[in-house]
Amino acid sequence: MSDTLHIGFFIYPGVTQLDATGPAQVLSLVPGAQIHMIAKTLDPVPTDAGFSILPTDDIHTCPQLDVLCLPGGTGQVPVMGDGEVLAFLKRQGDGARYVTSVCSGSLILGAAGLLQGYRSACHWAFRDMLPMFGATPVADRVVQDRNRISGGGVTAGIDFGLTLAAELAGEDKAREIQLLIEYAPAPPFDAGRPETAGPELEARVRDHFAAAI
Amino acid sequence: MSDTLHIGFFIYPGVTQLDATGPAQVLSLVPGAQIHMIAKTLDPVPTDAGFSILPTDDIHTCPQLDVLCLPGGTGQVPVMGDGEVLAFLKRQGDGARYVTSVCSGSLILGAAGLLQGYRSACHWAFRDMLPMFGATPVADRVVQDRNRISGGGVTAGIDFGLTLAAELAGEDKAREIQLLIEYAPAPPFDAGRPETAGPELEARVRDHFAAAI
Repeated sequence: MSDTLHIGFFIYPGVTQLDATGPAQVLSLVPGAQIHMIAKTLDPVPTDAGFSILPTDDIHTCPQLDVLCLPGGTGQVPVMGDGEVLAFLKRQGDGARYVTSVCSGSLILGAAGLLQGYRSACHWAFRDMLPMFGATPVADRVVQDRNRISGGGVTAGIDFGLTLAAELAGEDKAREIQLLIEYAPAPPFDAGRPETAGPELEARVRDHFAAAI
Repeated sequence: MSDTLHIGFFIYPGVTQLDATGPAQVLSLVPGAQIHMIAKTLDPVPTDAGFSILPTDDIHTCPQLDVLCLPGGTGQVPVMGDGEVLAFLKRQGDGARYVTSVCSGSLILGAAGLLQGYRSACHWAFRDMLPMFGATPVADRVVQDRNRISGGGVTAGIDFGLTLAAELAGEDKAREIQLLIEYAPAPPFDAGRPETAGPELEARVRDHFAAAI
């Protein structure tokens, strides 16, 4: 048995890269961790932010993961209809210690049949789609239900990552990682949730997503 | 004249990828923005988190940037001694509207001669090296001095990104971006600064960096 902890993010064209790169930074600091960026093929994956990530594994070469994580993104719609990818995710999810997601990545887990009967987080704008997949939406920043752990929208991936780091390596190590990445956030504005941002900004963000998808 | 806003991160082997990918996510949402990931060559750049980013430009093909941003990382020491790269950064910095950094990336700006007489942020563990480059260290999360804007350690890049987004596109747009990326942080622990983490964790993080560099 290997001591390596295989932590894998499934990425795809149009992925919201911070959904994956945020928790990847946190979890790469867990002792024994090896980060996998998995894609359908080994071709570079164009993210939503104008640059590409090179996959470390494709769906044929990826070892069984200890942690499966699904980031969200406006490119996720075709992924949710790709039977070959969904079968890979289901097989990995059934064998993983933790099945996780950030942002609307929870909807991909749902499409793969991995959230039936579970409580889950999701980006606020897409949270009400979870019941389509038999999951119960929860408006918290990080949600844990048995071995499913999920984060809310985009930046929640860092809070999710630290929560999972504590599960994997203990709270003391998670606190050390928090100090290393100087995670003492100080948002310059208070518009991170619809409740504080107000209806006009909420409408503009919904329009942005409608146009992008 | 183009309406494109060229925002470039200079990356290198061993870069702390979240220093770049955090603000890249935020700034990619500024109207007209084009994100550049610039490296010395176009070869994939292995980050500190176990995966590689594909550069969009090298130091010979990169257009004049509107925003130059330097991320930090344990791989930055050879960069700070690479005359060809430092000359590129100096030339870009002299022509850019904003010269910026996240984490210990400010020390690279310093090595390029771009921080002489400026106040700057830096990762807490490396902040006291700024005076070697004629810069004045400031212990704030985001520091602005004329057209220099800098963030503290790693995750401060998101706060930095939102501050810069407001400079570039106005506070209303920055608040919209904050809502889009659901930036309402809720750290599960309170260990993001040496003052709250305590001396034992501080010593362990300093040991981690000493071993990594």
